Amino acid sequence: MPDTTAAIVVIGNEILTGKSQDQNASFLIAELYELGVKLERIVVIPDDREEISRTVRDCAARFSVVFTSGGIGPTHDDVTIEGVAGAFGRRVVRHPDLENMLRSHFGDGIDEVRLRMADVPEGSVLIHPAESRWPILAVENTYILPGVPELFRSKFAAMRERFRVKPFHTRAVYTLQDEFDIAEDLNRLAADHQTVIIGSYPNFTRSDYRVKVTLESKEPEATERALSALLAILEPGSLVRTE
Amino acid sequence: MPDTTAAIVVIGNEILTGKSQDQNASFLIAELYELGVKLERIVVIPDDREEISRTVRDCAARFSVVFTSGGIGPTHDDVTIEGVAGAFGRRVVRHPDLENMLRSHFGDGIDEVRLRMADVPEGSVLIHPAESRWPILAVENTYILPGVPELFRSKFAAMRERFRVKPFHTRAVYTLQDEFDIAEDLNRLAADHQTVIIGSYPNFTRSDYRVKVTLESKEPEATERALSALLAILEPGSLVRTE
Repeated sequence: MPDTTAAIVVIGNEILTGKSQDQNASFLIAELYELGVKLERIVVIPDDREEISRTVRDCAARFSVVFTSGGIGPTHDDVTIEGVAGAFGRRVVRHPDLENMLRSHFGDGIDEVRLRMADVPEGSVLIHPAESRWPILAVENTYILPGVPELFRSKFAAMRERFRVKPFHTRAVYTLQDEFDIAEDLNRLAADHQTVIIGSYPNFTRSDYRVKVTLESKEPEATERALSALLAILEPGSLVRTE
Repeated sequence: MPDTTAAIVVIGNEILTGKSQDQNASFLIAELYELGVKLERIVVIPDDREEISRTVRDCAARFSVVFTSGGIGPTHDDVTIEGVAGAFGRRVVRHPDLENMLRSHFGDGIDEVRLRMADVPEGSVLIHPAESRWPILAVENTYILPGVPELFRSKFAAMRERFRVKPFHTRAVYTLQDEFDIAEDLNRLAADHQTVIIGSYPNFTRSDYRVKVTLESKEPEATERALSALLAILEPGSLVRTE
């Protein structure tokens, strides 16, 4: 079975100009890793309908699931619904269930601005987790989440388990050797253990180690085999610790 | 003159799996804003040559400048040089000036692994800021920066002034009104002041305001005109403060 892969599309001028700092992609990175989902791409783009359509279309075609963050609301800069609709060549329509929920929430005073919160890409699926009052919108493999961090987190938390797949098995080794001096060995290690993703991260600021090598796969035995091979490569005495 | 636009391409499995947190894009967001450069896109991708080529090619064609972060080094997972070369249809060649610098740095003990640090996309330009010992590599409009945050920052700092253009002029207004109740007015404001980028950010956690509205352009008069129009729209007594 191929890996579940994911992309995150963060929508918002405020992130690109530094008015707000992203909290949603960084939250989702940790969640997806814990769920065993392979995050392949994070894209941050402006509140621009065409750009949203283009980016979501590309990501939805290439990865198993796409999560969008932001651009949901009643103002001119909230164009995610139209952008995602455009990505899938769909119209924006008013969803009767959402309209009913809005009418019962706002009562008789409801106006067109508030009703617009019921507008969705045609054919959207509403996901109703027990923990979430307002449903989550999905179009094909794309989940539309709000940009407000508290809402983003609670909505994702309410549906997270549906994304769980086989977990990653990861180890890390810290060594005092110079990265230049172990580079050839690491290249051979990577060639010999192709199912294991091997990362090499030199450290120039701390004095307790020079390189951190990470080993990651979904087969614990494969990761452990690569770890044994790595430990056999390192110079005696250079090993700081294994995690 | 059209705006200077920019994209940041962050390269590294370690960011996508949460082993490291990005520091370089968040640093560059603030730098580019201060320089007046319009950041249009941030992309985080794995250490994959094809993916780097594809992403850099797309960004370099669409934006004035592209900055890459990470994937520079001697190990198998350092594929940014090859990726950027591929983006521009160029070969990877050994740069004689870099080779000389490496030979004088490492002396007679230099080996092929270390010499590989002189390999660059053919036709690369070396930028030698006075403050930086090692030159910065540029290919067409793409600047290749290291992933180690301290090096990324010092290299960018050494060349930052070459990117400075007309500054942004930004104001912000905090109001107690509900975003639903000002949405139509904001939509009209945005339509009336098309050179001003107007953002509307509801706040659900703090009690001192309900919506922050931001106004941004490169023409101070345009921003201030939009600010006056916005202040005239808001209900008397709802204004919390203006920044």
